Amino acid sequence: MKSSISGFPELLPQEQIAFNRVANSIREHFEMYGFVPMSTAAVERISVLQAKGNDNEIYGLYRLADEHSKTDLGLRFDLTVPLARYVSQNGESLIFPFKRYQIAPVWRGERPQYGRYRQFHQCDVDIIGDGELSLNYDAEIISLVTWVLASLNIPEFHTEINNRKILTGFFSRLVRKDNLINAIRLVDKIDKITSEQFDTDMTTLLNNSADISKVRSFFDVNKRGDVDQILTWLRSLSLGEEFVQGVDELDKVVQILKKLGFNDKRIKISTSLARGLSYYTGTIFEATFDGVKDMGSIAGGGRYDNLTQTLGNEKKYPGVGATIGVSRLITKMLESGEMNTDKCSTADLLVTMQDQSLAPVYMRIANKFRAIGVKTETYLQEKPLKAQLSYANKKGIDFVLIANEKELVKSEAILRNMRTKEQHIIRTEFIGSDVRDIIAHH
Amino acid sequence: MKSSISGFPELLPQEQIAFNRVANSIREHFEMYGFVPMSTAAVERISVLQAKGNDNEIYGLYRLADEHSKTDLGLRFDLTVPLARYVSQNGESLIFPFKRYQIAPVWRGERPQYGRYRQFHQCDVDIIGDGELSLNYDAEIISLVTWVLASLNIPEFHTEINNRKILTGFFSRLVRKDNLINAIRLVDKIDKITSEQFDTDMTTLLNNSADISKVRSFFDVNKRGDVDQILTWLRSLSLGEEFVQGVDELDKVVQILKKLGFNDKRIKISTSLARGLSYYTGTIFEATFDGVKDMGSIAGGGRYDNLTQTLGNEKKYPGVGATIGVSRLITKMLESGEMNTDKCSTADLLVTMQDQSLAPVYMRIANKFRAIGVKTETYLQEKPLKAQLSYANKKGIDFVLIANEKELVKSEAILRNMRTKEQHIIRTEFIGSDVRDIIAHH
Repeated sequence: MKSSISGFPELLPQEQIAFNRVANSIREHFEMYGFVPMSTAAVERISVLQAKGNDNEIYGLYRLADEHSKTDLGLRFDLTVPLARYVSQNGESLIFPFKRYQIAPVWRGERPQYGRYRQFHQCDVDIIGDGELSLNYDAEIISLVTWVLASLNIPEFHTEINNRKILTGFFSRLVRKDNLINAIRLVDKIDKITSEQFDTDMTTLLNNSADISKVRSFFDVNKRGDVDQILTWLRSLSLGEEFVQGVDELDKVVQILKKLGFNDKRIKISTSLARGLSYYTGTIFEATFDGVKDMGSIAGGGRYDNLTQTLGNEKKYPGVGATIGVSRLITKMLESGEMNTDKCSTADLLVTMQDQSLAPVYMRIANKFRAIGVKTETYLQEKPLKAQLSYANKKGIDFVLIANEKELVKSEAILRNMRTKEQHIIRTEFIGSDVRDIIAHH
Repeated sequence: MKSSISGFPELLPQEQIAFNRVANSIREHFEMYGFVPMSTAAVERISVLQAKGNDNEIYGLYRLADEHSKTDLGLRFDLTVPLARYVSQNGESLIFPFKRYQIAPVWRGERPQYGRYRQFHQCDVDIIGDGELSLNYDAEIISLVTWVLASLNIPEFHTEINNRKILTGFFSRLVRKDNLINAIRLVDKIDKITSEQFDTDMTTLLNNSADISKVRSFFDVNKRGDVDQILTWLRSLSLGEEFVQGVDELDKVVQILKKLGFNDKRIKISTSLARGLSYYTGTIFEATFDGVKDMGSIAGGGRYDNLTQTLGNEKKYPGVGATIGVSRLITKMLESGEMNTDKCSTADLLVTMQDQSLAPVYMRIANKFRAIGVKTETYLQEKPLKAQLSYANKKGIDFVLIANEKELVKSEAILRNMRTKEQHIIRTEFIGSDVRDIIAHH
């Protein structure tokens, strides 16, 4: 029984330890900003999952005990729909602005042969307001996500920022209302398709095909200039109220970020940044590695003012949020060897055992190490010492404690550093901070 | 849209913070013993889920996009089957004894009207050997679980221990082989049914109905006496090789635990402890609150020598493990108010804002607090100071920073303790450890 199910990847212990280290670091950063952990059920009503009319593949559930009746339940395919449902449901009990993060698996009912992940982790952070939400929070989210990414051991990256109102304002004069989102989605693909393909597809959406030159020039010019130059250029265009409002919002968010210390290397304006999802209404942003276009974004998000309303909630809960592509990020870090993956134990010390009948003595000594905060495994299988040392090596445990019966009678043991081979003789009656310091400062 | 799905409970932020605090404490204890985190996919092949022939309700999956074809996939109903499958599959890459823990949701396809949980968390810890696994590890698992439970703020509890070989040895002379597990399961219910009911049901299983008095007396006597008295009594019975082996194993595990400092209040032998699951082969144990019988166990587990073989693996991977009933435990702790649930933020400090145009200044000050390790929220909505202080109170944030434009120009701010109302004037250019100490030591 060695079947692995395609699309449901699993990690080996050393990889899982590395994964958790990254996930915990992200978690600590979110909590440093006061964000609370949220853990919704993995299961939602199918009607809720489909409320946004999305075309994501969804897994529905049926009870094996009752094969004829499919349930009205399915597995979540993202963490945003459950958030909207949770806020709609618990709005009266929450304190706003509600700030939550969630790092959890999601499921996509893809066909196996697609070779795509059918379970992977998402890492979302959102701020939801009750009726109103200041634009300051848009800047806070971008600042937080940039700070989180910068804390990880990853290559240089930058964050592109735009505003959906700039895109909708621009296109509202050129395409029919029902083509707006298609035009925006096409812009989202601008770096992935040829310029000929872009022109052809865009022309079919335009009311007047002659406008293609306007479109081309609008999305071309933005490639040049720093943040202030692009803002000046955008201000020079008179493209209606919505467009101007988008420029004002973008300006405000960017100015806050500059005052927080983000320079032109970290923060860029890109008018061709579109984000495919239909629910964004204002600020949008995406972080990508410098000079790497084809890997896609490592984080992204934006402002959504009407999300809960799509679930039939009359109350307005505007939000701004981000997703960090934690599965993709960690997979890449594991592949490139940027993460230390040689540890298969959480322990820093292995207490070896040379006399089976003294097992409780070794176990008591291990407890003394734990009491002073040293993570400690005890080797309790009857094996030659050599095999036990090899076990410590293979698991990446840096220290071992070695004592035979004679030494134990004298309350002595040898603490050996497996890397440097340095040894200390320690007293086992009382294990104190001096011993902890040897292990902590190696 | 305020529909909550029955059987899929969700927590409010203050409850989730409390839940995570308990889960993290458990996690830290496991890692203190060197156990590695394991995270298998939530989805298994239905054939694997059913390999043990269990009668658990299982959720199968179907793709909404393709309603005609049910998949061969289902959601896990426990964490033991996925462990067995994972070890079978990755045995060559693992280092044995393999020690892992997993705290994760499981799903049961119960009918909604049963009012039972259809998603809940399990918390499992296991040690798996490659061909062999010393009985010392049975003692280590019991010791670890007892230590974890004792670290939680819960009522007094004790751990009952038994050995399956004692039960199978005892019954092998009284019932047919195919009635063995039924007899053991009936013993498992001994405290939940009347003695008349027990006698009636047991009599139908016995080869000779006259043996009911032997059964009654065997499971009665164990209620009296301490560990050593019961062991002496068990040794006095001559009930065959398997029975004696069970007594030997029980003796050894109990003696180790006594040497580790567990006294007769914490550790009891109960020959009527049976554990319903069919895969146990040796040591079994269960922790329950002192004097509370009807709540069921708060943790339990045992030795299983043949688990992976039920999945068709020829190799023997004996294991010993435990489950802590973390959902039940935390629900009870929340209900009884034993957990502090008044904090709806992870932050210890709220930086308030009195001048919208100075938002970046407040955000920069918040960053300075974060840099010295103080978890800090920034209030960025335009609201009267009074509303912001009320927000801090409602979220259970103990400190607030207050500064208007005049004070900021002088690089001054007021740090107020919301509980004691004590105030400090601090300098905002440099926020150092003295300020952190005020917040940390309140």
